[in-house]
Order: sequence, then C-alpha cells, then structure tokens
Amino acid sequence: MEMKKLGRVTAFSRGISLLSCAAVGGKQEGEGPLGHHFDEIDTDSFLGCDSWEQAESELQRRALQHALRKGGMTMEDLDTVLTGDLLNQCIGGSFALRNEPLAVAGLYSACATMGEGLVLSSLLIAGGAMKRAAVMASSHFCAAERQYRMPLPYGSQRSPTAQWTATAAGCCLLGREGDGPYLTHAILGRIVDMGITDPTNMGAAMAPAAIDTLTALFQDTHTKPQDYDLIVTGDLGAVGHGIVADLMGRDGFLMDERYTDCGLLLYDRKKQDMHAGGSGAGCSASVLCAYLLEGIKGRRWKKIIFAPTGALLSPTTTFQKESIPAVCHAVVLSAER
Amino acid sequence: MEMKKLGRVTAFSRGISLLSCAAVGGKQEGEGPLGHHFDEIDTDSFLGCDSWEQAESELQRRALQHALRKGGMTMEDLDTVLTGDLLNQCIGGSFALRNEPLAVAGLYSACATMGEGLVLSSLLIAGGAMKRAAVMASSHFCAAERQYRMPLPYGSQRSPTAQWTATAAGCCLLGREGDGPYLTHAILGRIVDMGITDPTNMGAAMAPAAIDTLTALFQDTHTKPQDYDLIVTGDLGAVGHGIVADLMGRDGFLMDERYTDCGLLLYDRKKQDMHAGGSGAGCSASVLCAYLLEGIKGRRWKKIIFAPTGALLSPTTTFQKESIPAVCHAVVLSAER
Repeated sequence: MEMKKLGRVTAFSRGISLLSCAAVGGKQEGEGPLGHHFDEIDTDSFLGCDSWEQAESELQRRALQHALRKGGMTMEDLDTVLTGDLLNQCIGGSFALRNEPLAVAGLYSACATMGEGLVLSSLLIAGGAMKRAAVMASSHFCAAERQYRMPLPYGSQRSPTAQWTATAAGCCLLGREGDGPYLTHAILGRIVDMGITDPTNMGAAMAPAAIDTLTALFQDTHTKPQDYDLIVTGDLGAVGHGIVADLMGRDGFLMDERYTDCGLLLYDRKKQDMHAGGSGAGCSASVLCAYLLEGIKGRRWKKIIFAPTGALLSPTTTFQKESIPAVCHAVVLSAER
Repeated sequence: MEMKKLGRVTAFSRGISLLSCAAVGGKQEGEGPLGHHFDEIDTDSFLGCDSWEQAESELQRRALQHALRKGGMTMEDLDTVLTGDLLNQCIGGSFALRNEPLAVAGLYSACATMGEGLVLSSLLIAGGAMKRAAVMASSHFCAAERQYRMPLPYGSQRSPTAQWTATAAGCCLLGREGDGPYLTHAILGRIVDMGITDPTNMGAAMAPAAIDTLTALFQDTHTKPQDYDLIVTGDLGAVGHGIVADLMGRDGFLMDERYTDCGLLLYDRKKQDMHAGGSGAGCSASVLCAYLLEGIKGRRWKKIIFAPTGALLSPTTTFQKESIPAVCHAVVLSAER
C-alpha cells in the first residue's frame, strides 16, 4: 500500500477500507434527527449496569459487537483495537475490553479521539503493521457531568455557549481490503491554544485547532472546500462552527452550506434543549458511524472531510486558570478509492 | 523496512533505531541508584512552575528538549510526538506541547504508556508512515498523590505493598536510519484482569498482564529468558516482580537474576522509604531513557526485553468496587540489528 506525504497530510494511493461501523446511543440521541440511523438506542441511562461509568463501557462493548456482526467478523479477525474516551484514566475503553483476546492501544484526544484513532489505524494498516483494526470512542452525559461539572441532582444552570455531552459510542472497523467507503487522506493535528479560558465555551477554544488542521489539509492537497460534498468538524457546536466559517472565509476558504459540525447534527437544537449543540468523544464517533459513513455508502456524498476536535483541558487546569489547548485530527472519506 | 508477524509479535528485519533519549527526574530520583544517569535532576518539586501539574508538563518539555539536543535535532525533524501520562485528561503531555509545531498523538496505558508509544511508533516508522517520532511519558509524585490518593499535607500512611510514583519523564527519539540501539520486536498487550481489587497493591494486579505478554513474546519468537541479557518489567515493584518470577517459572520460563523491574531499579529501597518500589508512567520511561538504553549503547547488555506494565483503574472504579484491569506492552531492544 503506497503512502505519500503531502506536507502534513498522508495520502493513501489505494485508500483504507472502512469495513463496518456501528453506533449506540442514549435517549436524547434517539430523539434527535439522527436517531433512526443508530444501530441501537438504549433509553436506560445505566444500560443495565450499576453506574454511569460502567454504562459508558457497555456502550463501547455494544458498538464493537454491532460493528463485528455487521461486518461478518469476530474479535479474532482484528489485530488491534484503538480506543479512548473522556473519563479519568480512560476507563470507558479499558473496562470495555477487559479479558478480551485483543491487543489494545489506549488513545486520548478528548472529543477528537475518533479522529486520532482513524489517522493512526490507517497509517498502521497502510504500512503493513496490521490488516484490520477497530477504532472506537465513547462519552456519557451523566458520567461526564459529574466528572467535569456538577453532580446531576444539583440541577445547575448551563450557559448558552455550553454543549451537551453525547451518551453514545461509535466503532469503525478498518482494513486493507474491502469495498469502501475509503479513507484516502489523514492528518494528525497540532495542539493549538489561543488563550481561551472559558470551559463553558469550548467551541471557541477548539475552533483555532480546526482552522489549523483544515487549512493544512486544503493547502497540502491543493484542494478547496468546494472539492468536497461535506465538511464536518466536531464537536464545535454553534459557536465554534461560526468562528471556523468566519475565519476560514477571511483566509480565502469559503465554507458554505456544505460545512457543518457533528455537534449540530446530533440533536435538534430547537426541540431539544442542547444549547450550543452536542459534544463528547461519543458525539463525533457516533455521528460518523451512524450517519456519515452510511451517507457515503448510499452515495449521498462522494467525498467528505471528517475533522473531529478536542479540548485538552481538565477541571484541574481550569481551577489553575490555564487556557484551553485543543487539537483537531482529520481524514478524507470517499466513496471511491 | 520489512515487518514480519510472529503470532502477536511484530519483528522488524532491520530494526528501528533509537536515535536519542533523555530523562529528567526529581529529588528522590536523583538520590536513587540511577541518579547520576539522568540528564537533569531538579530538586524543586515545582520545577519553577506554579503547580505540580504544570511541573509535570515541564518535565516532559525538558526531556524532549534534552533528547533533541543530544540527537542534534530540532522539532522540525520529527513527524509526530506520541505522549501520555497519568493525570486526568492526560494534561501532562498536552500542556507540554501547546503551540509547538508538532503533530501529537495522545496515548493512555497508565504506567505502560512508554511501552505503547514504542510499539506504535516503531510500527508506524517501519511501515513508512513516518521517518522520525518522539515518544514520551511522565508522572509526578505530588500531582499523582493528590489525584489518586490523599492531599500530601494529610501525611496519610502508606501500605507496605504500595509503590512510590516517580517524579520523572523520559523521552525517546526513534527513526528508520541510525546507529542503534535497535528496537527489533514489538508486542501490544491485551487487557488482563484477574480480579485483584486492592489499589494499594497494583503490582499484584499488573503481574498477570506481564505474564500474558512475556509468555506470548517468548512463545511467538521461540526464545527463552536466557536468550536475553536483561528482562525488565515495570512498574511491578517487589510484590509484582515476585509473582511474575514465580508463575513464569511454573510455566517453564525460568526468570533468574537477569529479571528485574523498573520499580526496583529507580530507588534504593533500603535507604529510601519507597515501600514496594517505584511506579508511575515516568518510572519505566525514565529508567529506559536514563539507564537501559545507555547500558545497551555501552554494550553492558546486548539484548533486553523492556515490558512496562500499567494498571488501568481510576479512583472512581475503586469506589465502585471494580477489580483492576492491567496491560503490558513489550519491546525487544538490541545493540545490533
């Protein structure tokens, strides 16, 4: 498999095949506009487990099972699972894969974890280090709220710029051979920090990282936004989406109606009270695995950019008045090689 | 670069070159038996920063700078940095690399992070996805204590099986070309959980993961412990080291005096009150970068196994009475290709 370095971007001459994918979501995700695209919606926030953290692991376990089943594969067909989540010490993925016969690489890029996994796994597969890999990521609203913000029973108010952490997991199986969709380009992001300090406005903090990665992608591949049918960042929400559209436009990259964001796709912001939109590692992962890849398969879109973003803060750094570093990893997904 | 799959192990026919490495440590690490091997010892636990978390980032920044300087390189010579640590949301690495011109892959394998980084980067380099990468990991005693256990001023008692989180970072630069030492074999671990629930005895929880990975390495490469000059797990400490030696012996793999552990090497357990030994992502990373690679370069050892172990628990999983999953990633390091 030939790889070509174009500046910061790696191009795969034959494309890495996305063999199968699946997404599992919670009640709010089921009620959103993408609800019917999910492989499974569980309206029990505990998913039959004893805690929300265990439920988040269960989301990953089920997403992997659905992806394997839909691809006609078993765990033995996979070389490695790359997984990550937002919980402290990344327990979502680690506990999901306890005692499974699978080599595991733990990832952390906050809400951009699915992007990091896709980039790393495609590079590993293209280079011949593995034949097939699974990439997955998750988040859980209730587990995230009590870890990052307030225990849910406090019923604390949310700022209008705040986003809603998705209760969802997405899992993607990638391989050297297959009928597509294909991953044709990959770029790993740099850590960008423009000094934003408001943890209830992470869209603004992450927008500069998205701009950095998207600009490099367009420049290094000599393409423009109009060469793609859809450009999806995530999870910038309404605030970050607006900043990216504005600033990219000023730099000569016209981000028109083909530009959207996973945080804007997952929920109906008019009917569901999600403020600036969705977020969480499970947001971009499930939007990709429930909706975007299906759309490419169905030829609704031929070529898209999937560019999940992550805010690399922690409650501790916020207490210490640090600004918020962010990262954006991106891949080009295409119906054809 | 040819890669060969031997069961779960990947063998590199020409070896991946370890171009440069560096380690930075704190006061206790400086007073330990490896103290004079470190590139820098800073006896100020804050390293001139305002918090211990910021100090941990500073450890990584300095380790990267030393490794680049010793290798005669700049950041522009690197394709990617793979980094991880134990802090919630992996802020040690993310904040160390803010606004640097470097693509970043965030990792999480707890104290086995250096192992995960070496395995992934060697696979990526061998496959042609990148030419040169940096791998780094860190931990900080004071930041870890207050995050995982008790605020330091409480002066709480420690159990005799407990280990001491190292205040240290190690950074390794790897590349396709170079004069060695060489990384010749790599294996990514599975997540093993034998039901241990005591978070003050993580050596016992991690030992089964080390046994799983070491057994696969010996079997798949048709080697035995006596084919290596040194076998170093980490950070099992005294308790876990004993379990691995015992159980591997029963399975026919005689782990004699050539078997040791990063947690036993870093401190003088008689003079320094470190209970069962060292631990933390910075323990195995700094023992590798300060001591082990230097020993291979100096031909003290020709061929060693470096097999860092990680306990994938969090305080939340402990409160929820979960058992402790663990992982062990391993590489073979050799003076010759």
